[in-house]
Amino acid sequence: MIVVMKYDATAKQIGGVIKRIEELGFKPHMSTGEKKTIVGMVGNGKKVDPDLFMALDGVDAVVPVLKPFKLASREFKSEPTIIDVNGFQIGGKQIAVMAGPCSVESLEQTMEAAVRVAKAGARFLRGGAFKPRSSPYAFQGLGEEGLKIMAKCREETGLSLVTEIMSPQHVDLLCKYTDIIQIGVRNMQNYSLLEAVGKTTIPVLLKRGLMSTIEEWLMSAEYILANGNPNVILCERGIRTFEKYTRNTLDIAAVSLVKNLSHLPVVVDPSHATGIRDLVGPMSRVGIAAGADGLIIEVHPEPDKALSDGAQSLYPDQFDDLMLSLNGIAEAMGRTI
Amino acid sequence: MIVVMKYDATAKQIGGVIKRIEELGFKPHMSTGEKKTIVGMVGNGKKVDPDLFMALDGVDAVVPVLKPFKLASREFKSEPTIIDVNGFQIGGKQIAVMAGPCSVESLEQTMEAAVRVAKAGARFLRGGAFKPRSSPYAFQGLGEEGLKIMAKCREETGLSLVTEIMSPQHVDLLCKYTDIIQIGVRNMQNYSLLEAVGKTTIPVLLKRGLMSTIEEWLMSAEYILANGNPNVILCERGIRTFEKYTRNTLDIAAVSLVKNLSHLPVVVDPSHATGIRDLVGPMSRVGIAAGADGLIIEVHPEPDKALSDGAQSLYPDQFDDLMLSLNGIAEAMGRTI
Amino acid sequence: MIVVMKYDATAKQIGGVIKRIEELGFKPHMSTGEKKTIVGMVGNGKKVDPDLFMALDGVDAVVPVLKPFKLASREFKSEPTIIDVNGFQIGGKQIAVMAGPCSVESLEQTMEAAVRVAKAGARFLRGGAFKPRSSPYAFQGLGEEGLKIMAKCREETGLSLVTEIMSPQHVDLLCKYTDIIQIGVRNMQNYSLLEAVGKTTIPVLLKRGLMSTIEEWLMSAEYILANGNPNVILCERGIRTFEKYTRNTLDIAAVSLVKNLSHLPVVVDPSHATGIRDLVGPMSRVGIAAGADGLIIEVHPEPDKALSDGAQSLYPDQFDDLMLSLNGIAEAMGRTI
Amino acid sequence: MIVVMKYDATAKQIGGVIKRIEELGFKPHMSTGEKKTIVGMVGNGKKVDPDLFMALDGVDAVVPVLKPFKLASREFKSEPTIIDVNGFQIGGKQIAVMAGPCSVESLEQTMEAAVRVAKAGARFLRGGAFKPRSSPYAFQGLGEEGLKIMAKCREETGLSLVTEIMSPQHVDLLCKYTDIIQIGVRNMQNYSLLEAVGKTTIPVLLKRGLMSTIEEWLMSAEYILANGNPNVILCERGIRTFEKYTRNTLDIAAVSLVKNLSHLPVVVDPSHATGIRDLVGPMSRVGIAAGADGLIIEVHPEPDKALSDGAQSLYPDQFDDLMLSLNGIAEAMGRTI
Repeated sequence: MIVVMKYDATAKQIGGVIKRIEELGFKPHMSTGEKKTIVGMVGNGKKVDPDLFMALDGVDAVVPVLKPFKLASREFKSEPTIIDVNGFQIGGKQIAVMAGPCSVESLEQTMEAAVRVAKAGARFLRGGAFKPRSSPYAFQGLGEEGLKIMAKCREETGLSLVTEIMSPQHVDLLCKYTDIIQIGVRNMQNYSLLEAVGKTTIPVLLKRGLMSTIEEWLMSAEYILANGNPNVILCERGIRTFEKYTRNTLDIAAVSLVKNLSHLPVVVDPSHATGIRDLVGPMSRVGIAAGADGLIIEVHPEPDKALSDGAQSLYPDQFDDLMLSLNGIAEAMGRTI
Repeated sequence: MIVVMKYDATAKQIGGVIKRIEELGFKPHMSTGEKKTIVGMVGNGKKVDPDLFMALDGVDAVVPVLKPFKLASREFKSEPTIIDVNGFQIGGKQIAVMAGPCSVESLEQTMEAAVRVAKAGARFLRGGAFKPRSSPYAFQGLGEEGLKIMAKCREETGLSLVTEIMSPQHVDLLCKYTDIIQIGVRNMQNYSLLEAVGKTTIPVLLKRGLMSTIEEWLMSAEYILANGNPNVILCERGIRTFEKYTRNTLDIAAVSLVKNLSHLPVVVDPSHATGIRDLVGPMSRVGIAAGADGLIIEVHPEPDKALSDGAQSLYPDQFDDLMLSLNGIAEAMGRTI
Repeated sequence: MIVVMKYDATAKQIGGVIKRIEELGFKPHMSTGEKKTIVGMVGNGKKVDPDLFMALDGVDAVVPVLKPFKLASREFKSEPTIIDVNGFQIGGKQIAVMAGPCSVESLEQTMEAAVRVAKAGARFLRGGAFKPRSSPYAFQGLGEEGLKIMAKCREETGLSLVTEIMSPQHVDLLCKYTDIIQIGVRNMQNYSLLEAVGKTTIPVLLKRGLMSTIEEWLMSAEYILANGNPNVILCERGIRTFEKYTRNTLDIAAVSLVKNLSHLPVVVDPSHATGIRDLVGPMSRVGIAAGADGLIIEVHPEPDKALSDGAQSLYPDQFDDLMLSLNGIAEAMGRTI
Repeated sequence: MIVVMKYDATAKQIGGVIKRIEELGFKPHMSTGEKKTIVGMVGNGKKVDPDLFMALDGVDAVVPVLKPFKLASREFKSEPTIIDVNGFQIGGKQIAVMAGPCSVESLEQTMEAAVRVAKAGARFLRGGAFKPRSSPYAFQGLGEEGLKIMAKCREETGLSLVTEIMSPQHVDLLCKYTDIIQIGVRNMQNYSLLEAVGKTTIPVLLKRGLMSTIEEWLMSAEYILANGNPNVILCERGIRTFEKYTRNTLDIAAVSLVKNLSHLPVVVDPSHATGIRDLVGPMSRVGIAAGADGLIIEVHPEPDKALSDGAQSLYPDQFDDLMLSLNGIAEAMGRTI
């Protein structure tokens, strides 16, 4: 950490910073320019909260030198993490394709989606049983009944399951039914929830918050890792910006960047990132070109009757075409689909 | 709701929209221009999810005509909501001043803050016992021990208490100790939590999410109201933008706007909105000038030793000065402090 | 256009809207729901400024039904625009690769870059002679001397030239030297400049503003087209968001979307979009996967001595590798490089 | 400037940084922690472009220690700048109120606005003769004819004039007619324009760009100052964020902050910041409470017939009421109106 003093900082204020550094068990390292004094902390490798220095008188800025995440970093673990789900290696050579409806609405609807996406080559069924909806008046999901439907689809199709959790009280219930637990965008910094799933070993798909920085996203992964669960899959699904033509803005550079910063696998969600059916195909190709390890795509047997997210759900025939179109890009990237 | 068809929409696609409108129990109302066809829903006052139409073929845009929140709106309840907390009327003529440390660190620290802010004229003590921190390695709060400390401060000073909840499992615990439960910025769309506090009648201070629109904020209030708890206080605390000089960007126009859209009281948090001690005073004055019903301000007996948020915490002497400086503005706005 | 009245709009206010619609030569079309009245304009195809209605009493919202751009739209011209520059078809099957240094610093530096990028397969030399810099104390470019250097490089290598314009007074000068004029990100809504280049027929590379919507970007293209110059190339180069890890956020979905909305060719600038050398390769691949017609990439013979943008400039050897790596993706997209 | 090396930086890479520092005439100052090496530049007070170091191998981050603006800073000039316009002191005790229509449409309309705002207490007439419009099909202003109309209004009412410039070619023309030249939001980084007005001594009202940071805004002021014109007035008029309820988001903290960072006077534009007539009053009060030195407000004799910005323009009667309502706040802030 580097502490930059204000241009008119007094000797007493500089002394205060030095004292605090020593109290924390670090060595201060002064550097006095013509205009400003800078005090570095020469350290013991421990992380220190920058706020502890920003609060001191005469301090202009505090610059962290070490990244705040550790277990999630490539510096900590240089080889990529591969997560085995029922024999499929997420983070391996093959792109993990997760597909299915936004909400589990009925056995028929979910089974039809499952059969079709399995046939087209997907290996995971996505579907929501507990649905976070911005309106209390909108469809809230079927709850445990929805989980049972998903389990039947797994039996029938062999697809592994991905579904969202909304409350720490549901961890046991979800572990009973699903193969991967999804932490949704609104709960990325719900620390009670992160701790609860961190105390299991079930793979966790951690969606990036709508307005969360890359660093905050990795810090939320760190919460899960630090609680003992090493099986974290990151998911980029678009951030909120001023642009309103698309539902969100896919931060595709974040995918390539996080593959460098972290050893964790990264999945792209082209459906939520854009909210527009016609962009799901292009953004799937883009995801693979960026180096993503997987895709999570909304597919509904009848999007025009979907209870949620119909406008961004693919028709099963469109999903068939999409899967075929991905082969070339995957191959160019040294991957398979 | 108005459905705008694409310029090349076919008669069959327009027919599909009309059929869906009729299925939902509304009357369609066509309007055919030279270039585009528009279909309105003449209604029964029920709310319909726009997604149900965006998913249909040939649809270019769907325009909601009614606001998605109802119980929170001025249209539903025109007179302002006033919430009585131990005899203080939040939303009444007097500005509700809530002050205290970010975190409850010890009895001494919290009591000293409480005594000082009470003496300066605050009527509520703020303080965190359960702390949401972006790093798993940062101080996480004292938990129930912290709540007990706050209760002792209430006994001593007569201040009412405001503290944050992080998990639905803690509702009963918090109701036992605090006078107002705070929903923090990261949990504004934690629907399990909103439902849990909605089933009590304790006043809830609902902070606007970092990334949340005014409409989403009011929809989260709607969740609490729709679950039966009418005692919601809104809190604007800055949104995330591209500007990094301040920690967040205080959306002051939202305060005046929400006072028009909704009957609920609104409080401003100048400490989190800016993250800079020197701006807490100006932004407190600004909050009152915008028509806010209260202020929530971080004050710490020794900000330079605070375990969190020291850089934005006022020294008690600064808080004294601030309170004095607010009289003139409050008076100009027809309020008292 | 559709005018949505406030829920308590009076008959007089509705009458005012109808009168204004008639004054403008349109027919009003009323639709009265249980809660709100809506007035549509059935039209003559002319565009009307929504502001003219927002200003009327009793109006809650105005919804444009027609897109505000016309000449730039696919509805106006369905086949893609192909722009011939010295025999190269921008918008055709072959990806247009533009490469070179941020600033023209000297004949040696520019020539070395030109020779290397030409050898690797680029067809256009980019380079700045007039440099917009956020500091008045930073290197401002060589001016006409820089243009002469670029012209020498064209003679030597056969590359076509792309360079930025900063003032309407320079149009003639730039037309004398360059093959494509670039409108930079800070000037996307400099209408004097858009008009000035619109009155020529030189191809214009129009960069999207840092915080400009897709619609505003296409409206700026419309300015150039409406002034008579049909040769507009759009360039996505990253938008400003809250994320600071990368210099900007590449809005890759905008590329695929604009290819649908407009007939104009689209180029991606992975260098400015990220500001990070290691991301230029991945984002070039991503651009092609999104359907872009070209790439504009910063390459410098000695990035560590560059007077500007060194951190995002490729070494010539890296550019060689990048060009090779693009073949597979281009082929998968049915393009050549 | 501080250069933070990557955790695996080699001795050769560190040597490269040291060499570059010495080449630039600074002294390097090493600080080697357990994990990372940091190299400071102990300086000669000159400013150095951080890009020069970001481009070097092995560099993780570059942290500027000195602010990039100088002439605009309080460190350079501690007493506030007061700009005399026809005897009125902008930046003095009295709040500068500038009011008038968005566009000059006719002599009658402008004169009526001028007479009314003068009577209510405004001291400056705002109005646009050259209008930047996002559509080439919208009203573009009356040009010099509009300037002549404004001059007649000055003769009649004694109001000083503020009007916008769009092209460096118009500097002489505008200096002939107006008292203050406005640089609009889209031209804040139009450096040709900044240089052109910087070479005069006419007071310049510099609006903050929609997408511009506080630092970039001050750097644009620096351009004007560095070219020799000391008469710069800053204007905060809302920034672009994800929130769409208001046209823009008024960054009110920026006003208080810039008053600390810079000696230049600051004006608030509540009309463009919100785009909503009902918010102009509250945001005017907020501006004064934040410490602004002036307000610039759109007033139109008949907003419902305005050719632009009608929805945010006040009726003259509303402006009368607003002016009266500002007295109390101004007094509470130790100002007059």
